[in-house]
Amino acid sequence: MTVAERLHDLGLILPQQSRMPPTVVTTFRWVRLAGSRVLVSGHGALQPDGRPAGPFGQVPGEVSLEQAQQSAQLAALSVIASVQRAVGDLDRISAWLTVSGFVNAAPGYPHTTAVLNAFSEVVLDAFGPVVGEHARTAIGVPALPLNLPVIVAAELELASG
Amino acid sequence: MTVAERLHDLGLILPQQSRMPPTVVTTFRWVRLAGSRVLVSGHGALQPDGRPAGPFGQVPGEVSLEQAQQSAQLAALSVIASVQRAVGDLDRISAWLTVSGFVNAAPGYPHTTAVLNAFSEVVLDAFGPVVGEHARTAIGVPALPLNLPVIVAAELELASG
Amino acid sequence: MTVAERLHDLGLILPQQSRMPPTVVTTFRWVRLAGSRVLVSGHGALQPDGRPAGPFGQVPGEVSLEQAQQSAQLAALSVIASVQRAVGDLDRISAWLTVSGFVNAAPGYPHTTAVLNAFSEVVLDAFGPVVGEHARTAIGVPALPLNLPVIVAAELELASG
Repeated sequence: MTVAERLHDLGLILPQQSRMPPTVVTTFRWVRLAGSRVLVSGHGALQPDGRPAGPFGQVPGEVSLEQAQQSAQLAALSVIASVQRAVGDLDRISAWLTVSGFVNAAPGYPHTTAVLNAFSEVVLDAFGPVVGEHARTAIGVPALPLNLPVIVAAELELASG
Repeated sequence: MTVAERLHDLGLILPQQSRMPPTVVTTFRWVRLAGSRVLVSGHGALQPDGRPAGPFGQVPGEVSLEQAQQSAQLAALSVIASVQRAVGDLDRISAWLTVSGFVNAAPGYPHTTAVLNAFSEVVLDAFGPVVGEHARTAIGVPALPLNLPVIVAAELELASG
Repeated sequence: MTVAERLHDLGLILPQQSRMPPTVVTTFRWVRLAGSRVLVSGHGALQPDGRPAGPFGQVPGEVSLEQAQQSAQLAALSVIASVQRAVGDLDRISAWLTVSGFVNAAPGYPHTTAVLNAFSEVVLDAFGPVVGEHARTAIGVPALPLNLPVIVAAELELASG
Protein backbone atom coordinates (compact mmCIF):
# COMPACT_ATOMS: atom_id res chain seq x y z
CA MET A 1 0.00 0.00 0.00
CA THR A 2 1.15 3.52 -0.75
CA VAL A 3 1.14 6.31 1.81
CA ALA A 4 -1.70 7.97 -0.11
CA GLU A 5 -3.74 4.75 0.09
CA ARG A 6 -3.09 4.45 3.81
CA LEU A 7 -4.17 8.05 4.39
CA HIS A 8 -7.32 7.38 2.40
CA ASP A 9 -8.09 4.24 4.39
CA LEU A 10 -7.60 6.20 7.61
CA GLY A 11 -10.09 8.80 6.37
CA LEU A 12 -7.45 11.51 6.54
CA ILE A 13 -7.53 14.35 3.99
CA LEU A 14 -4.44 16.43 3.17
CA PRO A 15 -5.19 20.17 3.20
CA GLN A 16 -4.63 22.53 0.30
CA GLN A 17 -1.61 24.87 0.28
CA SER A 18 -1.78 27.07 3.36
CA ARG A 19 -3.62 30.37 2.98
CA MET A 20 -2.43 32.71 5.71
CA PRO A 21 -4.44 35.81 6.69
CA PRO A 22 -3.37 38.80 4.53
CA THR A 23 -1.70 40.42 7.55
CA VAL A 24 0.69 37.49 7.96
CA VAL A 25 3.73 37.70 5.71
CA THR A 26 5.96 34.62 5.56
CA THR A 27 9.51 35.01 4.27
CA PHE A 28 10.51 31.37 4.60
CA ARG A 29 9.87 28.11 2.76
CA TRP A 30 7.50 25.54 4.21
CA VAL A 31 9.95 22.84 3.10
CA ARG A 32 13.64 23.23 2.28
CA LEU A 33 15.19 20.39 0.29
CA ALA A 34 18.94 19.76 0.45
CA GLY A 35 20.14 16.50 -1.12
CA SER A 36 18.32 13.73 0.73
CA ARG A 37 17.29 16.05 3.54
CA VAL A 38 13.71 17.31 3.79
CA LEU A 39 13.66 20.18 6.28
CA VAL A 40 10.17 21.17 7.35
CA SER A 41 9.22 24.53 8.90
CA GLY A 42 6.89 24.73 11.87
CA HIS A 43 3.39 23.81 10.75
CA GLY A 44 0.03 24.15 12.47
CA ALA A 45 -3.47 22.85 11.87
CA LEU A 46 -5.13 23.78 8.59
CA GLN A 47 -8.66 23.41 7.32
CA PRO A 48 -9.02 21.39 4.11
CA ASP A 49 -9.04 24.65 2.09
CA GLY A 50 -5.71 25.74 3.60
CA ARG A 51 -6.97 28.31 6.09
CA PRO A 52 -5.74 27.96 9.70
CA ALA A 53 -7.93 25.63 11.75
CA GLY A 54 -9.09 26.49 15.26
CA PRO A 55 -9.55 26.27 18.12
CA PHE A 56 -6.87 28.81 19.02
CA GLY A 57 -5.29 29.51 22.38
CA GLN A 58 -3.63 27.90 25.35
CA VAL A 59 -3.95 24.37 26.73
CA PRO A 60 -5.74 23.57 29.01
CA GLY A 61 -7.52 26.88 29.77
CA GLU A 62 -8.75 27.77 26.29
CA VAL A 63 -8.15 24.50 24.44
CA SER A 64 -8.71 21.05 25.97
CA LEU A 65 -6.25 18.16 25.79
CA GLU A 66 -8.52 16.44 23.28
CA GLN A 67 -8.74 19.56 21.11
CA ALA A 68 -4.97 19.98 21.25
CA GLN A 69 -4.54 16.38 20.12
CA GLN A 70 -6.88 17.05 17.20
CA SER A 71 -4.81 20.14 16.35
CA ALA A 72 -1.65 18.00 16.47
CA GLN A 73 -3.28 15.49 14.12
CA LEU A 74 -4.16 18.28 11.68
CA ALA A 75 -0.61 19.65 12.00
CA ALA A 76 0.65 16.22 10.88
CA LEU A 77 -1.56 16.42 7.81
CA SER A 78 -0.26 19.95 7.10
CA VAL A 79 3.32 18.71 7.27
CA ILE A 80 2.59 15.71 5.06
CA ALA A 81 0.81 17.92 2.51
CA SER A 82 3.78 20.32 2.37
CA VAL A 83 6.20 17.43 1.99
CA GLN A 84 4.08 16.03 -0.83
CA ARG A 85 4.15 19.38 -2.66
CA ALA A 86 7.95 19.50 -2.21
CA VAL A 87 8.90 15.95 -3.20
CA GLY A 88 5.98 14.90 -5.41
CA ASP A 89 5.42 11.36 -4.20
CA LEU A 90 5.19 10.54 -0.49
CA ASP A 91 6.52 7.05 -1.13
CA ARG A 92 9.89 8.64 -1.88
CA ILE A 93 10.24 9.35 1.87
CA SER A 94 12.61 6.74 3.29
CA ALA A 95 12.59 7.92 6.91
CA TRP A 96 11.10 10.38 9.33
CA LEU A 97 14.04 11.57 11.43
CA THR A 98 13.03 14.22 13.97
CA VAL A 99 9.80 15.83 15.15
CA SER A 100 9.93 19.01 17.26
CA GLY A 101 6.56 19.81 18.79
CA PHE A 102 5.56 23.01 20.54
CA VAL A 103 2.38 23.19 22.59
CA ASN A 104 0.81 26.53 23.59
CA ALA A 105 0.64 25.53 27.24
CA ALA A 106 -0.05 26.97 30.67
CA PRO A 107 2.88 27.05 33.10
CA GLY A 108 3.52 23.57 34.48
CA TYR A 109 1.20 21.80 32.02
CA PRO A 110 2.56 18.23 32.07
CA HIS A 111 0.81 16.60 29.09
CA THR A 112 2.77 17.87 26.08
CA THR A 113 3.80 14.26 25.41
CA ALA A 114 0.16 13.15 25.14
CA VAL A 115 -0.58 16.05 22.76
CA LEU A 116 2.26 15.16 20.42
CA ASN A 117 1.39 11.47 20.43
CA ALA A 118 -1.54 12.41 18.17
CA PHE A 119 0.97 13.78 15.64
CA SER A 120 3.21 10.73 15.81
CA GLU A 121 0.28 8.35 15.42
CA VAL A 122 -0.63 9.86 12.06
CA VAL A 123 2.98 9.51 10.94
CA LEU A 124 3.27 5.90 12.09
CA ASP A 125 -0.13 4.92 10.66
CA ALA A 126 0.47 6.53 7.27
CA PHE A 127 4.15 5.67 6.74
CA GLY A 128 4.39 2.45 8.76
CA PRO A 129 6.72 1.84 11.71
CA VAL A 130 9.97 1.44 9.78
CA VAL A 131 9.79 4.67 7.78
CA GLY A 132 7.72 6.55 10.32
CA GLU A 133 9.68 6.09 13.53
CA HIS A 134 11.34 9.30 14.71
CA ALA A 135 13.13 11.06 17.52
CA ARG A 136 10.89 13.65 19.15
CA THR A 137 10.89 16.55 21.54
CA ALA A 138 7.65 17.98 22.94
CA ILE A 139 7.74 21.17 24.95
CA GLY A 140 5.26 23.75 26.19
CA VAL A 141 5.58 27.40 25.13
CA PRO A 142 3.57 30.55 25.91
CA ALA A 143 3.16 31.89 22.38
CA LEU A 144 2.85 30.41 18.89
CA PRO A 145 2.14 31.85 15.43
CA LEU A 146 -1.56 32.72 14.93
CA ASN A 147 -2.07 31.70 18.59
CA LEU A 148 -2.37 28.10 17.41
CA PRO A 149 -2.31 25.43 20.15
CA VAL A 150 0.28 23.23 18.41
CA ILE A 151 3.14 23.88 15.97
CA VAL A 152 5.42 21.08 14.73
CA ALA A 153 8.69 21.18 12.78
CA ALA A 154 10.34 18.05 11.36
CA GLU A 155 13.11 16.54 9.31
CA LEU A 156 12.53 13.67 6.91
CA GLU A 157 14.81 11.74 4.58
CA LEU A 158 14.32 11.29 0.86
CA ALA A 159 15.33 7.97 -0.71
CA SER A 160 18.27 8.42 -3.04
CA GLY A 161 18.01 7.60 -6.73
CA MET B 1 40.95 6.06 27.77
CA THR B 2 37.50 5.03 26.61
CA VAL B 3 34.38 7.07 27.26
CA ALA B 4 33.19 4.37 29.67
CA GLU B 5 36.47 4.63 31.60
CA ARG B 6 36.20 8.42 31.77
CA LEU B 7 32.63 8.21 33.06
CA HIS B 8 33.78 5.72 35.68
CA ASP B 9 36.65 7.97 36.77
CA LEU B 10 34.22 10.89 37.04
CA GLY B 11 31.99 8.77 39.29
CA LEU B 12 29.11 9.07 36.82
CA ILE B 13 26.68 6.16 36.44
CA LEU B 14 24.54 5.69 33.33
CA PRO B 15 20.89 5.00 34.17
CA GLN B 16 18.94 1.94 33.08
CA GLN B 17 16.45 2.20 30.21
CA SER B 18 13.84 4.79 31.10
CA ARG B 19 10.76 3.55 32.94
CA MET B 20 7.98 6.07 32.42
CA PRO B 21 4.90 6.14 34.67
CA PRO B 22 2.18 3.83 33.27
CA THR B 23 0.04 6.85 32.35
CA VAL B 24 2.73 8.18 30.02
CA VAL B 25 2.66 6.60 26.56
CA THR B 26 5.56 7.40 24.25
CA THR B 27 5.15 6.81 20.53
CA PHE B 28 8.63 7.91 19.51
CA ARG B 29 12.14 6.47 19.62
CA TRP B 30 14.64 7.78 22.17
CA VAL B 31 17.30 7.63 19.46
CA ARG B 32 16.80 7.55 15.69
CA LEU B 33 19.79 6.38 13.66
CA ALA B 34 20.17 7.41 10.01
CA GLY B 35 23.51 6.66 8.42
CA SER B 36 26.11 8.47 10.50
CA ARG B 37 23.48 10.62 12.17
CA VAL B 38 22.44 9.92 15.76
CA LEU B 39 19.24 11.88 16.43
CA VAL B 40 18.33 12.04 20.10
CA SER B 41 14.87 12.82 21.47
CA GLY B 42 14.39 15.18 24.38
CA HIS B 43 15.69 13.51 27.54
CA GLY B 44 15.30 14.43 31.19
CA ALA B 45 16.91 13.31 34.43
CA LEU B 46 16.56 9.65 35.39
CA GLN B 47 17.33 7.76 38.56
CA PRO B 48 19.79 4.88 38.16
CA ASP B 49 16.87 2.42 37.84
CA GLY B 50 15.36 4.41 34.95
CA ARG B 51 12.55 6.18 36.80
CA PRO B 52 12.30 9.98 36.34
CA ALA B 53 14.46 11.85 38.87
CA GLY B 54 13.17 14.88 40.77
CA PRO B 55 13.03 17.57 41.82
CA PHE B 56 10.21 18.62 39.48
CA GLY B 57 8.94 22.08 38.67
CA GLN B 58 10.01 25.54 37.66
CA VAL B 59 13.33 27.34 38.15
CA PRO B 60 13.91 29.29 40.37
CA GLY B 61 10.65 29.16 42.37
CA GLU B 62 10.34 25.40 42.84
CA VAL B 63 13.80 24.24 41.76
CA SER B 64 17.02 26.13 42.53
CA LEU B 65 19.74 26.90 39.99
CA GLU B 66 21.96 24.27 41.62
CA GLN B 67 19.18 21.66 41.46
CA ALA B 68 18.50 22.51 37.81
CA GLN B 69 22.19 22.06 37.05
CA GLN B 70 22.10 18.65 38.73
CA SER B 71 19.03 17.78 36.63
CA ALA B 72 20.92 18.87 33.50
CA GLN B 73 23.85 16.65 34.50
CA LEU B 74 21.48 13.70 34.93
CA ALA B 75 19.87 14.51 31.57
CA ALA B 76 23.31 14.22 29.99
CA LEU B 77 23.71 10.76 31.50
CA SER B 78 20.24 9.81 30.20
CA VAL B 79 21.21 10.91 26.70
CA ILE B 80 24.53 9.08 26.85
CA ALA B 81 22.82 5.91 28.10
CA SER B 82 20.28 6.02 25.25
CA VAL B 83 23.04 6.60 22.71
CA GLN B 84 24.97 3.65 24.13
CA ARG B 85 21.92 1.40 23.78
CA ALA B 86 21.48 2.59 20.16
CA VAL B 87 25.07 2.37 18.91
CA GLY B 88 26.61 -0.21 21.25
CA ASP B 89 29.96 1.39 21.95
CA LEU B 90 30.26 5.05 22.95
CA ASP B 91 33.73 5.25 21.40
CA ARG B 92 32.03 4.97 18.00
CA ILE B 93 30.79 8.56 18.49
CA SER B 94 33.02 10.83 16.40
CA ALA B 95 31.32 14.13 17.24
CA TRP B 96 28.66 15.79 19.28
CA LEU B 97 26.99 18.24 16.91
CA THR B 98 24.08 20.09 18.53
CA VAL B 99 22.53 20.31 21.98
CA SER B 100 19.09 21.90 22.40
CA GLY B 101 18.29 22.57 26.03
CA PHE B 102 14.93 23.55 27.49
CA VAL B 103 14.68 24.83 31.05
CA ASN B 104 11.34 24.96 32.89
CA ALA B 105 11.82 28.62 33.82
CA ALA B 106 9.94 31.56 35.29
CA PRO B 107 9.35 34.51 32.93
CA GLY B 108 12.55 36.51 32.51
CA TYR B 109 14.79 33.92 34.18
CA PRO B 110 18.23 34.80 32.76
CA HIS B 111 20.38 31.80 33.77
CA THR B 112 19.42 29.10 31.25
CA THR B 113 23.01 29.22 29.99
CA ALA B 114 24.37 28.37 33.44
CA VAL B 115 21.91 25.48 33.75
CA LEU B 116 22.91 23.95 30.43
CA ASN B 117 26.63 24.33 31.16
CA ALA B 118 26.19 21.40 33.57
CA PHE B 119 25.04 19.28 30.63
CA SER B 120 27.89 20.36 28.38
CA GLU B 121 30.48 19.74 31.08
CA VAL B 122 29.52 16.06 31.30
CA VAL B 123 29.80 15.79 27.52
CA LEU B 124 33.18 17.51 27.37
CA ASP B 125 34.56 15.58 30.36
CA ALA B 126 33.41 12.19 29.09
CA PHE B 127 34.11 12.57 25.36
CA GLY B 128 36.99 15.05 25.44
CA PRO B 129 37.03 18.49 23.81
CA VAL B 130 37.50 17.34 20.20
CA VAL B 131 34.60 14.89 20.04
CA GLY B 132 32.52 16.64 22.68
CA GLU B 133 32.39 20.21 21.43
CA HIS B 134 28.95 21.21 20.16
CA ALA B 135 26.69 24.03 19.08
CA ARG B 136 24.06 24.74 21.71
CA THR B 137 20.85 26.61 22.31
CA ALA B 138 19.44 27.07 25.82
CA ILE B 139 15.98 28.53 26.26
CA GLY B 140 13.42 28.83 29.01
CA VAL B 141 9.95 27.33 28.60
CA PRO B 142 6.86 27.17 30.83
CA ALA B 143 6.04 23.47 30.51
CA LEU B 144 8.03 20.27 30.02
CA PRO B 145 7.14 16.56 30.02
CA LEU B 146 6.60 15.17 33.55
CA ASN B 147 7.11 18.75 34.80
CA LEU B 148 10.86 18.10 34.73
CA PRO B 149 13.10 21.17 35.18
CA VAL B 150 15.35 20.36 32.20
CA ILE B 151 14.88 18.50 28.90
CA VAL B 152 17.67 18.21 26.33
CA ALA B 153 17.65 16.98 22.71
CA ALA B 154 20.83 16.42 20.71
CA GLU B 155 22.43 15.25 17.52
CA LEU B 156 25.66 13.24 17.47
CA GLU B 157 27.74 11.76 14.68
CA LEU B 158 28.76 8.14 14.34
CA ALA B 159 32.19 7.34 12.93
CA SER B 160 31.88 5.61 9.57
CA GLY B 161 33.23 2.12 9.03
CA MET C 1 28.43 40.48 -6.02
CA THR C 2 29.83 38.79 -2.94
CA VAL C 3 27.91 38.45 0.32
CA ALA C 4 30.31 40.94 1.90
CA GLU C 5 29.58 43.46 -0.86
CA ARG C 6 25.83 43.00 -0.45
CA LEU C 7 26.09 43.52 3.31
CA HIS C 8 28.10 46.69 2.68
CA ASP C 9 25.54 47.99 0.18
CA LEU C 10 22.78 47.31 2.70
CA GLY C 11 24.69 49.35 5.28
CA LEU C 12 24.93 46.30 7.58
CA ILE C 13 28.01 45.88 9.78
CA LEU C 14 29.04 42.49 11.18
CA PRO C 15 29.84 42.65 14.91
CA GLN C 16 33.13 41.66 16.47
CA GLN C 17 33.45 38.34 18.30
CA SER C 18 30.91 38.25 21.13
CA ARG C 19 32.08 39.57 24.48
CA MET C 20 29.84 38.12 27.16
CA PRO C 21 29.64 39.65 30.65
CA PRO C 22 32.30 38.08 32.94
CA THR C 23 29.59 36.28 34.92
CA VAL C 24 28.43 34.37 31.82
CA VAL C 25 30.48 31.27 31.12
CA THR C 26 29.84 29.52 27.81
CA THR C 27 30.96 25.92 27.40
CA PHE C 28 29.81 25.49 23.81
CA ARG C 29 30.98 26.55 20.36
CA TRP C 30 29.17 29.32 18.51
CA VAL C 31 29.54 27.28 15.32
CA ARG C 32 30.18 23.54 15.00
CA LEU C 33 31.43 22.39 11.61
CA ALA C 34 30.92 18.79 10.48
CA GLY C 35 31.68 18.05 6.84
CA SER C 36 29.43 20.33 4.81
CA ARG C 37 27.23 21.08 7.82
CA VAL C 38 27.48 24.43 9.58
CA LEU C 39 25.65 24.12 12.90
CA VAL C 40 25.03 27.45 14.59
CA SER C 41 24.28 27.94 18.30
CA GLY C 42 21.57 30.29 19.47
CA HIS C 43 22.70 33.87 18.81
CA GLY C 44 21.29 37.18 20.01
CA ALA C 45 21.82 40.82 19.11
CA LEU C 46 25.33 42.22 19.54
CA GLN C 47 26.69 45.72 19.41
CA PRO C 48 29.45 46.30 16.82
CA ASP C 49 32.10 45.75 19.54
CA GLY C 50 30.64 42.34 20.44
CA ARG C 51 28.82 43.28 23.64
CA PRO C 52 25.15 42.21 23.91
CA ALA C 53 22.80 44.80 22.40
CA GLY C 54 19.63 45.92 24.17
CA PRO C 55 16.81 46.50 24.61
CA PHE C 56 16.31 43.49 26.90
CA GLY C 57 13.07 41.92 28.08
CA GLN C 58 9.74 40.64 26.92
CA VAL C 59 7.66 41.53 23.85
CA PRO C 60 5.39 43.51 23.81
CA GLY C 61 5.44 44.77 27.43
CA GLU C 62 9.11 45.74 27.72
CA VAL C 63 10.20 45.58 24.08
CA SER C 64 8.02 46.71 21.15
CA LEU C 65 7.45 44.71 17.97
CA GLU C 66 9.68 47.14 16.08
CA GLN C 67 12.45 46.81 18.68
CA ALA C 68 12.17 43.02 18.58
CA GLN C 69 12.49 43.11 14.79
CA GLN C 70 15.63 45.23 15.15
CA SER C 71 16.97 42.69 17.65
CA ALA C 72 16.22 39.90 15.16
CA GLN C 73 18.09 41.81 12.45
CA LEU C 74 21.10 42.18 14.77
CA ALA C 75 20.86 38.48 15.64
CA ALA C 76 21.15 37.72 11.91
CA LEU C 77 24.33 39.78 11.76
CA SER C 78 25.68 37.93 14.83
CA VAL C 79 25.02 34.60 13.17
CA ILE C 80 26.60 35.70 9.90
CA ALA C 81 29.67 37.04 11.73
CA SER C 82 30.13 33.75 13.60
CA VAL C 83 29.73 31.78 10.37
CA GLN C 84 32.33 34.00 8.71
CA ARG C 85 34.80 33.35 11.54
CA ALA C 86 34.16 29.60 11.23
CA VAL C 87 34.32 29.17 7.45
CA GLY C 88 36.44 32.14 6.36
CA ASP C 89 34.56 33.28 3.28
CA LEU C 90 30.78 33.75 3.33
CA ASP C 91 30.59 32.93 -0.37
CA ARG C 92 31.45 29.34 0.53
CA ILE C 93 27.92 29.00 1.97
CA SER C 94 25.83 27.11 -0.59
CA ALA C 95 22.55 27.07 1.35
CA TRP C 96 20.80 28.22 4.46
CA LEU C 97 18.82 25.22 5.65
CA THR C 98 16.95 25.90 8.90
CA VAL C 99 16.34 28.87 11.16
CA SER C 100 14.94 28.33 14.66
CA GLY C 101 13.81 31.59 16.24
CA PHE C 102 12.84 32.13 19.86
CA VAL C 103 11.07 35.32 20.91
CA ASN C 104 10.89 36.40 24.58
CA ALA C 105 7.13 36.84 24.43
CA ALA C 106 4.13 37.41 26.66
CA PRO C 107 1.57 34.58 26.83
CA GLY C 108 -0.53 34.52 23.68
CA TYR C 109 1.64 37.00 21.76
CA PRO C 110 0.77 36.20 18.14
CA HIS C 111 3.46 38.08 16.16
CA THR C 112 6.53 35.86 16.47
CA THR C 113 6.36 35.37 12.70
CA ALA C 114 6.63 39.12 12.09
CA VAL C 115 9.59 39.34 14.47
CA LEU C 116 11.52 36.58 12.72
CA ASN C 117 10.81 38.00 9.27
CA ALA C 118 13.38 40.69 10.11
CA PHE C 119 15.96 37.92 10.55
CA SER C 120 15.04 36.18 7.30
CA GLU C 121 15.11 39.43 5.34
CA VAL C 122 18.77 39.99 6.21
CA VAL C 123 19.56 36.44 5.11
CA LEU C 124 17.67 36.74 1.82
CA ASP C 125 19.06 40.21 1.06
CA ALA C 126 22.67 39.25 1.81
CA PHE C 127 22.77 35.73 0.33
CA GLY C 128 20.12 36.04 -2.38
CA PRO C 129 16.96 33.93 -2.67
CA VAL C 130 18.56 30.72 -3.94
CA VAL C 131 21.20 30.35 -1.21
CA GLY C 132 19.23 32.20 1.44
CA GLU C 133 15.89 30.42 1.43
CA HIS C 134 15.32 28.34 4.54
CA ALA C 135 12.82 26.38 6.59
CA ARG C 136 11.91 28.28 9.75
CA THR C 137 10.18 27.89 13.08
CA ALA C 138 9.31 30.92 15.21
CA ILE C 139 8.02 30.40 18.73
CA GLY C 140 7.51 32.50 21.83
CA VAL C 141 9.26 31.59 25.08
CA PRO C 142 9.28 33.13 28.58
CA ALA C 143 13.02 33.22 29.19
CA LEU C 144 16.14 33.64 27.04
CA PRO C 145 19.87 34.03 27.80
CA LEU C 146 20.78 37.53 29.03
CA ASN C 147 17.03 38.32 28.92
CA LEU C 148 17.45 39.11 25.22
CA PRO C 149 14.21 39.55 23.23
CA VAL C 150 15.30 37.25 20.37
CA ILE C 151 17.62 34.26 20.06
CA VAL C 152 18.11 32.39 16.76
CA ALA C 153 19.83 29.08 15.97
CA ALA C 154 20.45 27.89 12.42
CA GLU C 155 21.96 25.30 10.12
CA LEU C 156 23.76 26.24 6.90
CA GLU C 157 25.49 24.21 4.22
CA LEU C 158 29.04 24.64 3.04
CA ALA C 159 29.82 24.11 -0.63
CA SER C 160 32.02 21.06 -1.12
CA GLY C 161 35.45 21.33 -2.68
